[in-house]
Amino acid sequence: MMRLMKKAIGEAESGRGPREDRGVISARIISAARDEFIEQGVSGATFRAIARRADVDPALVHYYFASKERLLDAATTPPPDFLDNTQTAISAPLAIRGQRIIEHVVSSWAAPSTGPILYATFLCANVDERTREKLRASMSANFIGATSQRLPQRDRLLRAGLVSSQIVGLCWHRYIWKLDPLATMSDRDVISAVAPTLQKYLNGRM
Amino acid sequence: MMRLMKKAIGEAESGRGPREDRGVISARIISAARDEFIEQGVSGATFRAIARRADVDPALVHYYFASKERLLDAATTPPPDFLDNTQTAISAPLAIRGQRIIEHVVSSWAAPSTGPILYATFLCANVDERTREKLRASMSANFIGATSQRLPQRDRLLRAGLVSSQIVGLCWHRYIWKLDPLATMSDRDVISAVAPTLQKYLNGRM
Repeated sequence: MMRLMKKAIGEAESGRGPREDRGVISARIISAARDEFIEQGVSGATFRAIARRADVDPALVHYYFASKERLLDAATTPPPDFLDNTQTAISAPLAIRGQRIIEHVVSSWAAPSTGPILYATFLCANVDERTREKLRASMSANFIGATSQRLPQRDRLLRAGLVSSQIVGLCWHRYIWKLDPLATMSDRDVISAVAPTLQKYLNGRM
Repeated sequence: MMRLMKKAIGEAESGRGPREDRGVISARIISAARDEFIEQGVSGATFRAIARRADVDPALVHYYFASKERLLDAATTPPPDFLDNTQTAISAPLAIRGQRIIEHVVSSWAAPSTGPILYATFLCANVDERTREKLRASMSANFIGATSQRLPQRDRLLRAGLVSSQIVGLCWHRYIWKLDPLATMSDRDVISAVAPTLQKYLNGRM
């Protein structure tokens, strides 16, 4: 373990080591941090416990992530393809945009590469103001962009909030609290149950 | 403080003391426990910290509430008038039931006697299975009862879940994450934005 740390630090300092190593170790720390934040909360998570989970020395966690804030930020940042897919969904033709958005939400929560990140972000936003602000900025930018451009700005803001509220409530039932029937229905059934509501919020009569 | 504890224990044991005293002390402990559960999480909350918040001796907390489970249960149990008002809302004429339900939700979260209890219940349900089960049982019983009786049972179950999802998502935005515009809109505007969605889930075409 110490050897691994020294090797990694040595490589990082000299800048000569293979990038893969750094990436692998850093990803392992981020994933351990995410689990720790989910289980112990932001205030309860410690560098030591995260290091134990990642099976690295605590000094290495400090070396890669100088502060808990940086670690939390890394643990709640979705991968680039999630952002790309979000863009694709909110740019779909307006008439099918509600459907595309909920399809994207459902497939992202189900994917091992994004589900745990969304889960950690939602839970940490309950107790950490920065995470909440990050979430707010991302949801409001995306969902306002998804609403009909013909509507007045104030109206679009409200509709974006309603889209977000229906999605967040669904995610809480299906993925966090895991309450039936929403937790055990097929993706397809969930999508067809929720898409019309989102579509109404995006451009329907209210 | 010790005198207060001894007095309360003496009265509780002898059964002679004025009920007000017991009620007042117990309510203070419950309220302190609720704040502690919200801030420190279920696993992070301790009898000692709760006692400190309530300004009583830890032994008194143990005396009134033998276990953390009992304390958590007390901290997440709404008062009888909340249950009465829920019954009234879900028994309103079907055509205006969506409106009545969201009015009840919004006024309950705004009320000092119920808002903090709902807040604690939602947060503790994230990490505590019993709280989650309590919430599930209450929401599903109430919201299934609110859906149109003419629909098949399976359909009513789904619709109740959707009602619940829209309400929970709204509450998360307005009262927990406090994200605009849903957090700062008037109760009236929130009610008129969300009521039609609930009404559709209760008895509309889907």
